[in-house]
Amino acid sequence: MTESFTSDKDRPNHDLLASPNLSLELNGDQFRELVGQAVERLAPFLDSLADQPLQGDAKEIKQQPLPEKPAEFATLLDELFEQRIPQSYNTPSPGYLAYVPGGGLPHAAIADLIADTVNRYVSTWFTAPQLVRLEADVVDWFCRIVGLPDSAGGLLTTGGSLANWIALVTARELGKIDDLRQATVYVSDQAHSSVAKAARLAGVPLANVRSIRSDRLFRICIEDLEKQIADDLKSGLIPLAIVGNAGTTNTGAVDSLESLSRIAQQQNIWFHVDAAYGGFFMLTERGQQAMRGIELADSVTLDPHKGFFLPYGNGCLLVRRKNDLRLAHQESSDYLPEMPDESGRVDFCQISPELSRDLRGLRIWLPLKMHGVEPFRQNLKEKLDLCHWAAKELQLIDGIEIVAQPQLSTLAFRLCRPDDSDEQADAINRLLCDRINESRRILLSPTILNGRFVVRICVLSFRTHFKQLKICLEEIRSAVEQMRVIQLPDTK
Amino acid sequence: MTESFTSDKDRPNHDLLASPNLSLELNGDQFRELVGQAVERLAPFLDSLADQPLQGDAKEIKQQPLPEKPAEFATLLDELFEQRIPQSYNTPSPGYLAYVPGGGLPHAAIADLIADTVNRYVSTWFTAPQLVRLEADVVDWFCRIVGLPDSAGGLLTTGGSLANWIALVTARELGKIDDLRQATVYVSDQAHSSVAKAARLAGVPLANVRSIRSDRLFRICIEDLEKQIADDLKSGLIPLAIVGNAGTTNTGAVDSLESLSRIAQQQNIWFHVDAAYGGFFMLTERGQQAMRGIELADSVTLDPHKGFFLPYGNGCLLVRRKNDLRLAHQESSDYLPEMPDESGRVDFCQISPELSRDLRGLRIWLPLKMHGVEPFRQNLKEKLDLCHWAAKELQLIDGIEIVAQPQLSTLAFRLCRPDDSDEQADAINRLLCDRINESRRILLSPTILNGRFVVRICVLSFRTHFKQLKICLEEIRSAVEQMRVIQLPDTK
Repeated sequence: MTESFTSDKDRPNHDLLASPNLSLELNGDQFRELVGQAVERLAPFLDSLADQPLQGDAKEIKQQPLPEKPAEFATLLDELFEQRIPQSYNTPSPGYLAYVPGGGLPHAAIADLIADTVNRYVSTWFTAPQLVRLEADVVDWFCRIVGLPDSAGGLLTTGGSLANWIALVTARELGKIDDLRQATVYVSDQAHSSVAKAARLAGVPLANVRSIRSDRLFRICIEDLEKQIADDLKSGLIPLAIVGNAGTTNTGAVDSLESLSRIAQQQNIWFHVDAAYGGFFMLTERGQQAMRGIELADSVTLDPHKGFFLPYGNGCLLVRRKNDLRLAHQESSDYLPEMPDESGRVDFCQISPELSRDLRGLRIWLPLKMHGVEPFRQNLKEKLDLCHWAAKELQLIDGIEIVAQPQLSTLAFRLCRPDDSDEQADAINRLLCDRINESRRILLSPTILNGRFVVRICVLSFRTHFKQLKICLEEIRSAVEQMRVIQLPDTK
Repeated sequence: MTESFTSDKDRPNHDLLASPNLSLELNGDQFRELVGQAVERLAPFLDSLADQPLQGDAKEIKQQPLPEKPAEFATLLDELFEQRIPQSYNTPSPGYLAYVPGGGLPHAAIADLIADTVNRYVSTWFTAPQLVRLEADVVDWFCRIVGLPDSAGGLLTTGGSLANWIALVTARELGKIDDLRQATVYVSDQAHSSVAKAARLAGVPLANVRSIRSDRLFRICIEDLEKQIADDLKSGLIPLAIVGNAGTTNTGAVDSLESLSRIAQQQNIWFHVDAAYGGFFMLTERGQQAMRGIELADSVTLDPHKGFFLPYGNGCLLVRRKNDLRLAHQESSDYLPEMPDESGRVDFCQISPELSRDLRGLRIWLPLKMHGVEPFRQNLKEKLDLCHWAAKELQLIDGIEIVAQPQLSTLAFRLCRPDDSDEQADAINRLLCDRINESRRILLSPTILNGRFVVRICVLSFRTHFKQLKICLEEIRSAVEQMRVIQLPDTK
């Protein structure tokens, strides 16, 4: 320490001088070295992804105490890459066809490396206008993809759940509903659980979330919806929002968005579309066809960590009139300057429930600028093709029933053995799913449709290509053959 | 493409084969190369941080169209590092003493590089138990630091705003308040704006957020609070939550948390502590002294991006009884398995408003494991020392009034010239702040206290040491000398 002090009063006490001995700083060389070590684990990880098991082994998991002593970075990397990471679902694997995959573009990791290190404050315009604009551009591009008008805007979130919640809160604030006990929300019985949760978090009683029956294509029954709204209005309730599905999680079903928009407009109800799974298929012609009417929505949820292939933790809410978000969220503080609503300028804290937060836009901006939009479109087109191909192949397997034909890139099927009871059928399909997954070459996940256990295939990772679907069909055929000869106890 | 097809029906159409030509994948070598390029910008960035300007130049900001063509990575890095990043507040600079700094540990960037690339699904226990446990350990460590009992738990958020909101929603759900129009929330007039916003988002009318007068130390007036609660109860209202400050943003003031806890217990009101800024000073003896009673809270907000030095986007909510979060947030889906409430097991989606989200714990786990907790404690201790040193030095400057003495690592001051009116005093202090910041060696930010414009110093970055405070005092002294001779028009 070679500070020179101009006078005795400048001289700090011993502690002030000593603390740099326990510095937390990484200088450029240290940073380079640590990143280099991490990359030497990550590069082989990426190259071997297809060969890594799809599920981890269950091992004993111990809680650790607050670290009192320093540990070597290499030791920590060992712990992560040899124990913690392998003992989990291999969600970025090309063979991961379970739940809703996305893969996780490694570009996003590089974007976060940059964003975290430069650590700029993007919650307000005046602190980082060029980076706020970068993120606002990403949001504008998404508005264009979905087909919303120029008045539209929005914000990036950590996922679809918060996006759905912000949509309902915005509808609530604009609706100026005095007594939330009177507010009702309309969804199909296929809606994502986050919609009901969002309503509850927004203060709407769970009992007022109307779960409308879906038809045999798992689309909301328009007639039932209209009847329920009419009944509720008669009872003095106040319809707050209709939430349409643009790709349900269960089957990728798309509600008749044009009909929903018409009803919403007639009754002056907020029309939200949960397009967390399906939204980015708007880049393809077939997606545009399937989701006709999405451009009429008051708000749309997208999950870039699904159809835009980003890592988990990337959601988005678009609104038809960007000022709606501001009306619902703006605030002021003594310690912050005024934030006027000027053209081209965005203050994220004025249009969102968050104040301080990370720069989210770079994760999307970087891969999109590097590749241009065309590879995203081609990849999405390919996923639609792959899923339709799988549906055709499945139909050739004796005893397989396609319970949900692909409307986007998801299908659901089950094995129907002629003499099984419903319970036996569920048991055999549960076994079928387990047997397919035991292959460890691909991973599927089940769900319940019409009260019965079914198996889903969801094709959405940018890493998933024809090779994996071919393996998938092989595994299904082989597992079905095994199921044919299995005897189950009669549970009737 | 050398796929071999077992039969003609396996053969996909042309599109299925063609899509890998537009691959979005990065293989190991490509990833290594791109990370290397990014690090060659970031390493010099880190080494030159102290010499980079603290504010950017205002330049014209253009919106960009959706990228149709690919761009070179190097060109994009140029755009980021030469235009977008420099045109912003240099928040990670050691001289950044504005708002609430934190610096941004570069370890977090490496953690995100890993987390994003391996892209595991940590919202549920069964998909990545070892990584969920890693994050749950971090939360447990924070509970220990704050002094909460073993029953405590919590979750990581993107910042304090959402943490405050989750706290109020949890209080609301447990309180089973039928009519939210009757719910009231109590805060001091120094509370962060996110508390009122959180109440509003939770469905509590803004008019029911009681802003209680603070005393001359900017702590909530206990007497006024008790009177307001009594009045509200008499009016049939239902007190939902008392929110205490453990370090206000304006001045770092800490409310009498023991008194607040006593009142909350007497009246059966949820007691939340907003310790976003101050919480991590619980690692120091002086912090423990200042925040006595925090361990009695029902819930506590922390911002690791403040006192734990992480990059922006890292908040935390701790609750006294971890099951409270579950009662307020649990849900189920047909496509997800049961998630039993077992010891040691955590399903983040059952205790939070989010479902899919990123692995947040690694950002905190990595630097804490690498260094152990002691350097964090020493750094925080140093920040307290530095702020107290600055307060002593400021008092020696003729005409400087310390409006808020440091209770933690923040102080507020103003220049009082004998003949100025209130308006002139505000104008001269605004000028003073601008003049200090024009030095571009340090950055301070103003606020309003008792209706008057004051200048704040907040010492919290792990990069800020005695050298910067010495520069800060030099700049203040020099700017004060300039202010002494400035004539202002009489605005009275």
